[in-house]
Amino acid sequence: MKNLISMRDLTREETLRILELAQEIEGGKTRPDLSGRLAALLFYEPSTRTHFSFDTAMKRLGGQTLSMSGSGSTSVQKGESLADTLKTISMYSDLIVIRSPVEGAARYAAEVVDIPIINAGDGANQHPTQALLDLYSIRKTQGTLEGLSVALVGDLKFGRTAHSLVQALAGFRPTFTFVSPEHLVMPQYILEDLDAAGVTYHHQTTLDGVTPGLDVMYVTRIQRERFADPEEYEQVKDSYVIDREILSDAKPTLRVMHPLPRVKEVSTEVDGTEHAYYFQQARNGVPIRQALLALLLGAAS
Amino acid sequence: MKNLISMRDLTREETLRILELAQEIEGGKTRPDLSGRLAALLFYEPSTRTHFSFDTAMKRLGGQTLSMSGSGSTSVQKGESLADTLKTISMYSDLIVIRSPVEGAARYAAEVVDIPIINAGDGANQHPTQALLDLYSIRKTQGTLEGLSVALVGDLKFGRTAHSLVQALAGFRPTFTFVSPEHLVMPQYILEDLDAAGVTYHHQTTLDGVTPGLDVMYVTRIQRERFADPEEYEQVKDSYVIDREILSDAKPTLRVMHPLPRVKEVSTEVDGTEHAYYFQQARNGVPIRQALLALLLGAAS
Amino acid sequence: MKNLISMRDLTREETLRILELAQEIEGGKTRPDLSGRLAALLFYEPSTRTHFSFDTAMKRLGGQTLSMSGSGSTSVQKGESLADTLKTISMYSDLIVIRSPVEGAARYAAEVVDIPIINAGDGANQHPTQALLDLYSIRKTQGTLEGLSVALVGDLKFGRTAHSLVQALAGFRPTFTFVSPEHLVMPQYILEDLDAAGVTYHHQTTLDGVTPGLDVMYVTRIQRERFADPEEYEQVKDSYVIDREILSDAKPTLRVMHPLPRVKEVSTEVDGTEHAYYFQQARNGVPIRQALLALLLGAAS
Repeated sequence: MKNLISMRDLTREETLRILELAQEIEGGKTRPDLSGRLAALLFYEPSTRTHFSFDTAMKRLGGQTLSMSGSGSTSVQKGESLADTLKTISMYSDLIVIRSPVEGAARYAAEVVDIPIINAGDGANQHPTQALLDLYSIRKTQGTLEGLSVALVGDLKFGRTAHSLVQALAGFRPTFTFVSPEHLVMPQYILEDLDAAGVTYHHQTTLDGVTPGLDVMYVTRIQRERFADPEEYEQVKDSYVIDREILSDAKPTLRVMHPLPRVKEVSTEVDGTEHAYYFQQARNGVPIRQALLALLLGAAS
Repeated sequence: MKNLISMRDLTREETLRILELAQEIEGGKTRPDLSGRLAALLFYEPSTRTHFSFDTAMKRLGGQTLSMSGSGSTSVQKGESLADTLKTISMYSDLIVIRSPVEGAARYAAEVVDIPIINAGDGANQHPTQALLDLYSIRKTQGTLEGLSVALVGDLKFGRTAHSLVQALAGFRPTFTFVSPEHLVMPQYILEDLDAAGVTYHHQTTLDGVTPGLDVMYVTRIQRERFADPEEYEQVKDSYVIDREILSDAKPTLRVMHPLPRVKEVSTEVDGTEHAYYFQQARNGVPIRQALLALLLGAAS
Repeated sequence: MKNLISMRDLTREETLRILELAQEIEGGKTRPDLSGRLAALLFYEPSTRTHFSFDTAMKRLGGQTLSMSGSGSTSVQKGESLADTLKTISMYSDLIVIRSPVEGAARYAAEVVDIPIINAGDGANQHPTQALLDLYSIRKTQGTLEGLSVALVGDLKFGRTAHSLVQALAGFRPTFTFVSPEHLVMPQYILEDLDAAGVTYHHQTTLDGVTPGLDVMYVTRIQRERFADPEEYEQVKDSYVIDREILSDAKPTLRVMHPLPRVKEVSTEVDGTEHAYYFQQARNGVPIRQALLALLLGAAS
């Protein structure tokens, strides 16, 4: 494993090794030493949350960071190619974390530089560290990844975190319920992958009856920009709000997850319940990223 | 002491303990160890000076920081509530320093997260670390906080640092002279507090005769925006400039202080005199903030 | 040596000492310890590359940094003088690296504060750490600085890096070839200096015949803004592109250098050749800056 660009690059064994190492780090069983190591955090598309999470991961293992945030990299303004910028930064640092609005940017980065690259989100394409922390959160709360009943709610067409999670769980005999408006359903290519893998799933447009027997409810934001008709958005928005009532017939072990930021998809009245897990989920991003940084920098194996 | 939101939350004993600890840290008698600790510096309203001061305080004690500066937190842009942003950041860090243009933001932060909060300025309301470094500077230069003669000059109506300082000194039997234009006088509620505490004060609109016997001259900026009539501003501005002439009959131990940045309220010709103390005053912000960080992170008591 | 403002402040011995120390640091023979030291990186004009390079240099020697990037220093917005800002920041840090669009800003900084100042570029004037890393790169690749044949290509009128390099090499018996359009030739005052020093040089407007016998080809960017007539720019731009063909009759030891960012002055087809040295040149900025930081902070001599 030289880079982390896409979940599809990881074997099942590599994925499980990352989760295990994250658990060892979180539990204090191992503490990879990144002192003297320098990671460049290049956020061409700002993201306080993901930026802070990587920054925390490095610094809590003794490492240091170089940070760039903003669409206007000064070198880009001067007409420099992305390849040149990355090659230069690879002269200063030991690893590059890159977030870009451009799909494929991280893969390209891995081709032009010699140091490890972590994809922290490339447009609508991949955000593999989010998928890994989602898996980690599921395993931590359910005790296993095998045979779980998982609902995905919200924008399933454009939501990259939903796509990555479905792909990542597919090998663990899940049962999926997809809850979304008709025009925001899970893309056909993902459904075909699930069919090929023999995964059970079904789709519904409302939250009716989704809760009983469910282990994980994974909620994503529905963005206004996805609707041509603002009125339709207003209707739809209110139909996919998770509140206490919807959770009234849930198993005690059901956990509600959300990649954050949330707007109103999960009512704040859920925050105080045993089902709420989104903030701990965010916290889980730190050991996952620590595990990845340690593996890619050769400080763990 | 779990947070520092307002000077009013501090007992006299707590205030004195902070000053004492700052002195011990500055003098090298104690060095709290913040290695492995992470403070998030959230500056929704940028402030290079205060930001650098906290950053320095953490790093010089071996700690690390996460930094966010700018009105446009990316999460806010995505519609996230301040509560959610803060809860998430509390998952990554051990303490949050927050500066916000919104009054009450720091108090609110302390209510929604479990880690310590330091208010680094919330609009026109409070800026308690400034008040503490002012007290520290006064005690350091005068040898005591008790029974001093202190003039406050400039915008006493809107200047939050002037308000905090007056409140903080009130318990130490001061004599105050308030020097300001008529429409920028000290607010009534503060004068009532002083009356209740039996503090001697008087007000005047010019600097005439203010210097003799004075221990501390605390100068604040008069902002153009406070005047409806630009001409009035021009007149007033020039009436409150501290220069060598005004200081000609001062005690040798008089110190001129200013929260900075200054524009022209203190003439640069004062910089070279024994009375100038504003840059050392800024420097005093470091041990004060180190003491606070150490106390709130449990690295000192 | 208290500051580094201009190459002209350095004696030949000081220059050679810096190069030597950089080599010792890069080779691992010495490692100055900057732990507990804090450098403020003030970039009034953003520059990802130079900023990262200084940040890397500090952090890889165990030091820490305070970072400010952007034209809008908040203190400047409030009407504070540059002198006051610098004096205040000197209260928090041990050394200031300053980049400013204003010529003379670094010299001025050195006059108003007591801590060391490093000029990281002041407008079209000086960028001495670039000149030092250029010298370092030349010595490292050629084994010596003495008696080299060096071509400078591109905008020789406004290119501050070209000026600094020519001045810095003048004492080492070089032979210069200046290649530029007629209206972007090397300034007269520099040619007079070279005459006074007995340096051999000649000028030509094309790259014809420049390669044979050459040791270093130093290429700089030609900026569109320098041309009144856009068509003339388009013509000229294409006349100064270094490609494989131009290098076909070069010595194997010829190295092509460029301060970066490049736009099209050096074809990417050169990147894979033995002649390409611009990315390693950027890397050389780290030991050079480490040597300077160590010397100015008293961690090396």
